[in-house]
Amino acid sequence: MRLAPLLIALSLALPAAAAEKPTAIPPSSLAVAAQLREQALKDDTGWKVVESLTTEVGPRLAGSEADARAAAWAVAKFKALGFDKVWTEPVTFPKWERRSEHAAVIGAHPQPLTITALGGSPGGTVQAEVVRFADLAALEAAPADSLKGKIAFVDYQMKADRAGSDYRNGGAIRSRGPSAAIRKGAIGYLMRSAGTDQHRVPHTGITRFDEGLTPVPSAALATPDADQLSRLLSRGPITVKLALDCGWDGSYTSQNVIGEITGRSLPQEVVVIGGHLDSWDLGTGAIDDAAGVGITMAAGHLIGQLKQAPKRTIRVIAFANEEQGLYGGRAYADQHRADVRKHQIGAESDFGAGRIYAFNTSAPESARAATQQIAEALAPLGIEYQPTKGGPGPDISPFAAHGLAWAWLAQDGTDYFNLHHTADDTLDKIDPQALAQNVAAYTVFAYLAADADGGFGSEAKEVTPPNE
Amino acid sequence: MRLAPLLIALSLALPAAAAEKPTAIPPSSLAVAAQLREQALKDDTGWKVVESLTTEVGPRLAGSEADARAAAWAVAKFKALGFDKVWTEPVTFPKWERRSEHAAVIGAHPQPLTITALGGSPGGTVQAEVVRFADLAALEAAPADSLKGKIAFVDYQMKADRAGSDYRNGGAIRSRGPSAAIRKGAIGYLMRSAGTDQHRVPHTGITRFDEGLTPVPSAALATPDADQLSRLLSRGPITVKLALDCGWDGSYTSQNVIGEITGRSLPQEVVVIGGHLDSWDLGTGAIDDAAGVGITMAAGHLIGQLKQAPKRTIRVIAFANEEQGLYGGRAYADQHRADVRKHQIGAESDFGAGRIYAFNTSAPESARAATQQIAEALAPLGIEYQPTKGGPGPDISPFAAHGLAWAWLAQDGTDYFNLHHTADDTLDKIDPQALAQNVAAYTVFAYLAADADGGFGSEAKEVTPPNE
Repeated sequence: MRLAPLLIALSLALPAAAAEKPTAIPPSSLAVAAQLREQALKDDTGWKVVESLTTEVGPRLAGSEADARAAAWAVAKFKALGFDKVWTEPVTFPKWERRSEHAAVIGAHPQPLTITALGGSPGGTVQAEVVRFADLAALEAAPADSLKGKIAFVDYQMKADRAGSDYRNGGAIRSRGPSAAIRKGAIGYLMRSAGTDQHRVPHTGITRFDEGLTPVPSAALATPDADQLSRLLSRGPITVKLALDCGWDGSYTSQNVIGEITGRSLPQEVVVIGGHLDSWDLGTGAIDDAAGVGITMAAGHLIGQLKQAPKRTIRVIAFANEEQGLYGGRAYADQHRADVRKHQIGAESDFGAGRIYAFNTSAPESARAATQQIAEALAPLGIEYQPTKGGPGPDISPFAAHGLAWAWLAQDGTDYFNLHHTADDTLDKIDPQALAQNVAAYTVFAYLAADADGGFGSEAKEVTPPNE
Repeated sequence: MRLAPLLIALSLALPAAAAEKPTAIPPSSLAVAAQLREQALKDDTGWKVVESLTTEVGPRLAGSEADARAAAWAVAKFKALGFDKVWTEPVTFPKWERRSEHAAVIGAHPQPLTITALGGSPGGTVQAEVVRFADLAALEAAPADSLKGKIAFVDYQMKADRAGSDYRNGGAIRSRGPSAAIRKGAIGYLMRSAGTDQHRVPHTGITRFDEGLTPVPSAALATPDADQLSRLLSRGPITVKLALDCGWDGSYTSQNVIGEITGRSLPQEVVVIGGHLDSWDLGTGAIDDAAGVGITMAAGHLIGQLKQAPKRTIRVIAFANEEQGLYGGRAYADQHRADVRKHQIGAESDFGAGRIYAFNTSAPESARAATQQIAEALAPLGIEYQPTKGGPGPDISPFAAHGLAWAWLAQDGTDYFNLHHTADDTLDKIDPQALAQNVAAYTVFAYLAADADGGFGSEAKEVTPPNE
C-alpha cells in the first residue's frame, strides 16, 4: 500500500450514475454465498499462497531478478489453483536499485544510525550538520537557503489507528519532504520512518523529486534512531555522514499476472479483485502485499470450485510494481479503459492481513440495495456496512478514475505501520484466521457482485488522475 | 547478561558459614531505608544516567573506541553524582571486531538472510548446503563427519519466562554449538537467535571454540529468517552463502570504573553493587547493561545524599567487558581477593530494566534474620523474599567463588530476550517507573547491608571457578 488515504479522497469525486433499473441479487445467489463464506473460513488456501510467495520468491523489488520469478510464480499458482484462463500483460517502468546504505553520527558522540534509502533516492555521500524539524510544515516554513549545506531531518512520529489515517502525514513527509528540503538548500534528507513501531527496522517507500530540483540522498531512520538523533541534537550541533549507493538504472518490463474463473452466462463481464505482486526489498512483503495476492487468489479459487460458476467472470490480478507508482494499476487501466462497462466492479486488497471491519461500494442509488445485500452477507464476518465511506485500492484507483465502480473492504490496519515497508514484513506477522476472514469476505463479495442482476455503476468518464 | 542461569547454580555450592553472632539491622536504619525507598521511587537519577550513557556513548563494544569513551563517561558521571572516591582499575582482554556480515540463500530461491556474527567468530566466506537440527542434542548426536563441507543450522526457539530460564538452552547453542558442528565436519555454523522476539534483529553474543578445533564462521539468524530457512529446507536441499568479516585483533586494556560513598564508621568495609559498562555493538546497550549501571549509580548517589552515611562504604562498580567473558568481574576478583572479608556483600544488576520481584542473599544462618529484615524493607516494592533461590550476578560470580557473600535482586525478564544482544536494545525499551523501582530496591538493600551490625558471610575460600 502506498498512499491509500489520499486515494480514498477520490471517492468523493465520483459522480452518481444515471438512474437505471435497480440492481438486485437473487436469493439463490445469497444462499451460495453463505455456504462459500463458511467454507472459506475453514480453508487455508490463502495462507498457503502467502506462504508460497513469501518463502519461494521472498523479497521482490520491482525490476529486480525476483520480479521475474514472482511473475512466473503467479502464472504457475493461478494454474495450480484451477483458474481457467491465465495470462500476463506488460508493465514497463524505470528501475531503481538499492545497493548499500550507511549513516553515522560524527564528532564527540560517534555511532552508527540505522537507516534505509527512500525508493527513488540517488546515491551519494554527504556529511553535514543536521537541522531538525517537527513536521513537514515546519520544514516548508524554514527561511530560503537556511539549510544550505545542511541535512534536513523531519522528526514526525506517526500515530497508529485502525484506518492508518496518520499515513497521510507520514507518507507526505516521505514523498514531499526531500523536495521541500532541497528548496531550502539541503544537501541530504533524513526522516523519522513513517511507522508506528519501536524497532531498528527503518521504513522505506517511494519518494519523488519535483521537476527542476537536483535530487539529494534521502533516507529514513528507524524510530529508535530518530529518538537518538533528536536526543543528541538537544545537546548541541550534530554532524551526520550519510552514504547511499542506490539509484535509477534504465527501465524494466514486468507483468500484470491475471487469472480468470469464467462466468457462466456473461463471461465477457468481469469482477476484478487483486493485490500487488511486487514488494519492497527489505522484507518478504507478507502483509504488503502477498496477503492481498493470497486473499484474492484464494477467493477466485473457492469460487472456481463451485459446481456452477457465477454469471460473470472473476478476474484476479496480481499487479506489477504498485510500490513505485501504481505502474501495474495504471497499465491495466490504459489497456482496458475501452472496456470499462464490461468491468462490473473492482477491489484491491492492499492494507495488510488484518480483519476486514467495513464494506462499501461506489455504486449509485440504483445499486445501493445490492450493495446492502452484499453487506448483509458480509455481516456474519463482523463487517459493518458504512455507506458513506471508502475508496478504491491503489491499483484500482487509476481505472476508478476512468469510471470503474469500486468496492471497499476495509482492513484493520492498527498494526500495519509497525511493519509496512520494513524488514519486519514477514510471514510470521500474519494471523491465519484473520487471513481466512479476508478470504471469506472477498469470496462473498466477488461471487455476489458477479452473480447480481444488474451493474454497480461502471461507466466511461473523463479521467481524473489520482492526486499523488 | 551472559550466562546467568548457569551462574545461579553456583549458589547451591556455597557452604554455610560457621555460626557467629547473629547479624541485625537497627530500627533507625530501617527507618532511613523506608525514607530512601519512597524518595528513590520519585527520583529520576537512574533514568538520566541510562539516557546519558546510551545517548552520548551509544554502543560500546569492549575494546572499541567507544570503550574508552565509556570509561571516561563513567569517571565523569560518578564525580558529577557526588561519589567521594572515583578511580579505575585495569582490565585486559583480547579484542574482537565486527566489520561486516552477510548471508544469502543461493539457488532457486535466492534471497538475503538477516544474520549477525557471534562474538568470537572468525571471518571467512563459506557456501554450502545447510543441515538443520532441532536443538543442540540433535547436533551432538549427528554421526561423525556427517557435516563434512556443510553448514550446521541449530533451529531451537527459546521460550520466554520471567526468570529467562530457557537461556540455558539458547546460550548453550551459542557457546557450544559451533564446536559441536566443527567436530562433525561443518565448515560454517548458523543458529536461530537465542531470543524470544519476532523481529529482523538477530542476537549476537560470545561463542567459544574448544581447544584443538579450527574455528569456522558462526552466526545467528533473526527469528523470522530462521523460520524462512526452515520453510525452505522443508522443500528440499538449500545452499547458503555466509560471509563474515570479523575476528580477534590483539589485546586491549579497559577499566573497571569505581565510585564510592565513604562509610561513616567502617569505611574499609564495602557493600559492592554495580552493572557492566560494556555492551554489544548492535544496540546502545540500554537494558544490557546501561540499566544496571544507572540503577546502581543512582542508588549510590541517593545514599550519598543522606546527611549521615551508612556505617560501611557503598562501592559502585561499572565493570569492563562482561560480555566477552566476565573480564571486569574476574579482574576485580583477582585484584581484591585478599580483601574478601572486607566485602560485606555484593550484587550486580544485569538482567535488564524490568521490575524486581524477588530477593535473597547467600547469607548463612547467622545473617538470615538480617536478610529477612532487608526483605521486609523491600516488600512494599512488590518484592518477595525467596530464601532458597538466587545467585550472584555475572560479574560478582568470580568473587563469589572466592567467598564473597552475594545478594540476588531478581528482575522480571519476560521481555529481556526480545532485546538482549540485538540492535533493538535501545533506551525506548525501558520503562522509567520500573527503573525507579529497581533503584529503590538497590538503594534499600545497599543501605541496610552497609548499616547492619554484623556481616553476611563473606570469607576467603577455595576457588570454584564458574562452570562456563
